[in-house]
Amino acid sequence: MKYIDAKGVAKILRSKDNILILTHYHPDGDTLGSAFALCRALKKLGKHVRVHNEEEIAKKFDYLWQGLEIEDFKEDFVVSVDVATMELLGEKTQQQYADKITLAIDHHSSNRLDVPYLYLEGDSAANAELIMLVIDELGVEIDNKIADCIYTGVSTDTGCFRYGNVTRRSFQIAGRMLDLGADLYNINIKMFETKSKGMIKIEELALNSVEYAFDGKCAMITITQDMFRKTGTTENDCEAISSLPRQIEGVYVGITIKERKNGMFKASVRSRAPANSANICSALGGGGHAEAAGCRFDGGIEEFKEALLKEVEKELSKI
Amino acid sequence: MKYIDAKGVAKILRSKDNILILTHYHPDGDTLGSAFALCRALKKLGKHVRVHNEEEIAKKFDYLWQGLEIEDFKEDFVVSVDVATMELLGEKTQQQYADKITLAIDHHSSNRLDVPYLYLEGDSAANAELIMLVIDELGVEIDNKIADCIYTGVSTDTGCFRYGNVTRRSFQIAGRMLDLGADLYNINIKMFETKSKGMIKIEELALNSVEYAFDGKCAMITITQDMFRKTGTTENDCEAISSLPRQIEGVYVGITIKERKNGMFKASVRSRAPANSANICSALGGGGHAEAAGCRFDGGIEEFKEALLKEVEKELSKI
Repeated sequence: MKYIDAKGVAKILRSKDNILILTHYHPDGDTLGSAFALCRALKKLGKHVRVHNEEEIAKKFDYLWQGLEIEDFKEDFVVSVDVATMELLGEKTQQQYADKITLAIDHHSSNRLDVPYLYLEGDSAANAELIMLVIDELGVEIDNKIADCIYTGVSTDTGCFRYGNVTRRSFQIAGRMLDLGADLYNINIKMFETKSKGMIKIEELALNSVEYAFDGKCAMITITQDMFRKTGTTENDCEAISSLPRQIEGVYVGITIKERKNGMFKASVRSRAPANSANICSALGGGGHAEAAGCRFDGGIEEFKEALLKEVEKELSKI
Repeated sequence: MKYIDAKGVAKILRSKDNILILTHYHPDGDTLGSAFALCRALKKLGKHVRVHNEEEIAKKFDYLWQGLEIEDFKEDFVVSVDVATMELLGEKTQQQYADKITLAIDHHSSNRLDVPYLYLEGDSAANAELIMLVIDELGVEIDNKIADCIYTGVSTDTGCFRYGNVTRRSFQIAGRMLDLGADLYNINIKMFETKSKGMIKIEELALNSVEYAFDGKCAMITITQDMFRKTGTTENDCEAISSLPRQIEGVYVGITIKERKNGMFKASVRSRAPANSANICSALGGGGHAEAAGCRFDGGIEEFKEALLKEVEKELSKI
């Protein structure tokens, strides 16, 4: 495997055609923004390009490929964007394309892809930042549609510039995309300011379920399958809810317990230093980052809560 | 009155001492960030400076003046920041200082101050952006504490870069402040990711009160005095709630009705184009902007809702 930079990526892409771009499964704004920005740029060079991903893409992202003609061709070159491991391609895509990937562009320092060429910047807030550098090296002018795609990647992977991963470059790129015609206002409404009626309903039920422990330093929300049914929502609608309990003043560890379809449970843990989410979840067979981690439990909910709180207590003792 | 720029402001300030900086009442992140950034910069030039504002400042802002020595002196020069009209100083401050203001720095194009010198940039997303330009003209090095203040102004007045007022300059300044040591991560948590237990409770009650009209194109939330009492919150805690109904998918007009202490009602209206909040509120004796406006009603709530919905219907007919 060879590590290359944006210039190296541009050099390779310039010599290829019939290019297939792969995103990770359960696609988010950064993998999709990266893929469609690169797709649009390569099409401007007259190439045949197609984006492939495992699942149906949420409707809110449809502006990313608006006006793009979907081409059918036998791929000669396969590139993955924002994909850290082959498993993240999704099962079918992995079977079909994993051994055909020649180039990967990624920003996860945990990247484990074994591919001929890898462009990796582990300290980049968003993969779309790397795609912009590649497009610049390709010499393609960034139009407002490409700018929409790049802004979407940068803004979604930084939680609209709120997360600790944001860098000066993220801000610079956002400003540049604004000037190049990206529709920040409407993208922000779609990505950050829109909730379905069901989400409003399940958020209310979630807030109603808040339990506090350890003098308010830990807050816990429980979402049951019955709540999903009643509100017509799925687990995918609950990502924003997972960050709710930790947002409560005085809370160091926020836990969202979700009932799985099989009646067992899983937990999303969010924390603020010195409390460490990964420690809590690792102890229960899960894992993740210091600020956000997760774990599953094959047992009853009361038993699960007890096990979680035992680990939470250890983390709170650090305060 | 004379319009001046950042260079002109710096020239005047350099020649003055015993400077009093006034913020607007009900102070927000931009007026406070502006005031304390300017205060810290002028102190670095060896001047006596004090920030004055009408009300007690919310505790979450305390990092803005952390480590600042509060000085007592008779002011020789008074400057206002982010204050568009004298009324916005608050009653007592207006009586005491309105006719003493020599210089005003503001970013509201609606500015109506009649003062000897006015530095006004109506298209600046935040007043703190102008303060940064002034500090640069003063030749003062921006340290991490000043950077915290400026970032706070820019991020809060742009809704953390989500609102339509954000410009390339806002992003550039945010990136620069990050590099100068502003603690973006913790400021973002304090400003945008923290809710009191009472706020969580009233948010739940508010979500429970959602009513839809016109096929889901209008959503209405009602907050009563009883809800404030039950949750130990005040109207000030509800600003985030006002944006909730418009966030619901398919909603063009979101209305939050709040019961006033006298038993009468007021409404915050938020809309997305082509629906216009100002039209709705103006018709009921209130006012505001196209996207956000407000009005009061001296009558019963059902009568108020009816009056509002009549105006909403007119706006929805534009879709």
